[in-house]
Amino acid sequence: MRIARFSIDGNVAFGAVEGDPSEPDTLAIDIIKGIPFAEFELSGTKVPLSKVRLLPPVLPSKVVAFGRNYAEHAAELGNEVPDAPFAFFKPSTSVIGTGDPVPYPAFSAELHHEAELAVVIGRMCREVPRDRVAEVILGYTCANDLTARDVQRTEKQWARAKGFDASCPLGPWVETDMDLETAAALAITCTVNGELRQAGRTSQMTHAIADLIVNISEAMTLLPGDVILTGTPAGVGPLNVGDEVAVSIEGIGTLTNKVIKRG
Amino acid sequence: MRIARFSIDGNVAFGAVEGDPSEPDTLAIDIIKGIPFAEFELSGTKVPLSKVRLLPPVLPSKVVAFGRNYAEHAAELGNEVPDAPFAFFKPSTSVIGTGDPVPYPAFSAELHHEAELAVVIGRMCREVPRDRVAEVILGYTCANDLTARDVQRTEKQWARAKGFDASCPLGPWVETDMDLETAAALAITCTVNGELRQAGRTSQMTHAIADLIVNISEAMTLLPGDVILTGTPAGVGPLNVGDEVAVSIEGIGTLTNKVIKRG
Repeated sequence: MRIARFSIDGNVAFGAVEGDPSEPDTLAIDIIKGIPFAEFELSGTKVPLSKVRLLPPVLPSKVVAFGRNYAEHAAELGNEVPDAPFAFFKPSTSVIGTGDPVPYPAFSAELHHEAELAVVIGRMCREVPRDRVAEVILGYTCANDLTARDVQRTEKQWARAKGFDASCPLGPWVETDMDLETAAALAITCTVNGELRQAGRTSQMTHAIADLIVNISEAMTLLPGDVILTGTPAGVGPLNVGDEVAVSIEGIGTLTNKVIKRG
Repeated sequence: MRIARFSIDGNVAFGAVEGDPSEPDTLAIDIIKGIPFAEFELSGTKVPLSKVRLLPPVLPSKVVAFGRNYAEHAAELGNEVPDAPFAFFKPSTSVIGTGDPVPYPAFSAELHHEAELAVVIGRMCREVPRDRVAEVILGYTCANDLTARDVQRTEKQWARAKGFDASCPLGPWVETDMDLETAAALAITCTVNGELRQAGRTSQMTHAIADLIVNISEAMTLLPGDVILTGTPAGVGPLNVGDEVAVSIEGIGTLTNKVIKRG
């Protein structure tokens, strides 16, 4: 099931997206009664997708992002692949949805895209055993780990470089019908104005999704809606005002955002 | 005014702490009608402080912590003082209150205390001009930026080393009757089992409170209840199971936590 969060006429709800994404006119949302983090029912009330505004599919209390988890990307920035995973946070205020604009950050002159597979946590958990990781996952969505690369080079910790407003586009929805094995073998691409910039496969991750969740949950509690970013493949590069950046992941969908001048 | 958050008989409320902290028997809480982030009234209903359980005084969406903001502390760990401030996040799941236990983290063998002055944000803001910083501050409290020092040394970003559960004790309450000038001239100490470990003054900060808030709000929106940690003076050191660690700041109060074995 593809679970979206959306607004229509000022109301916000979750819904299941039905239809064929390759034929946008067929897409409709069946409104969910309740929330997707517990048992829920579909209301049967369907709205054409074109009539709603998609929102970030979840409201994470925290986004935990892993660095340098694709060897070729680590190498392109002159870094070594770390032996163990390492993580940083993107705050709730950084999250936007598909279609939302990205104001070019005022404190940077080098905004970069980083296409990533995002894991959405479905239940409160900590110290998750490796063989039970699947139980804590609600599903998967696309993310763009937007980075102020110049600031990242000069500031030892990345709160500003990777935590600025609108630095974490998520969407378009959460695909829940996907197991860990499938999630580890997906094509992931990033295009800028239709031109291919990043093309990788989630099978290239150095540390597997399960290992990332074991690693972070060893230290801290994960809450329903929290999001784990799993690293970006090679090909990161600059974005300019006016650019449209799209992250597509096989079996999930496409997350599209336009970079605008800060108002 | 000292604004506390507390629970009594299963109910949670904010209240104003009245009385003389040096005579605990005189302390009482006047329950607040509403929340301290908007105009509010005191109810006049007073409860002895001894009858309530103090909670973290705010529920931050994010804690923004600045590193190496006291030169002597940077030096004691063999680090240089950065020219510009740099920040990292501690997540909402790391926050505990005074009196709450700190379970020794399972993934570390070197838990350290770091006493810090915490600034509590009072209103939603971004790109705060330096001369208007006072307007966005609700008040000040004590913090302990607990750190898994061994993990900090091996992981390039500090999400686990400084973001684990219970790594951010805050309290005992928020002192709102304090201006920026006063906040920049306070004695700050940390004791372990009554023995003095850290003794500094907030006047030793390399980057002033106002500059820290300008720096972070340049990149991201701050929300009411968000917390800024301003760095720790020299004297950080290990904590062991059974230790009682207390952070005291002049004009604010004392934040006390005991390290326990993980259950």
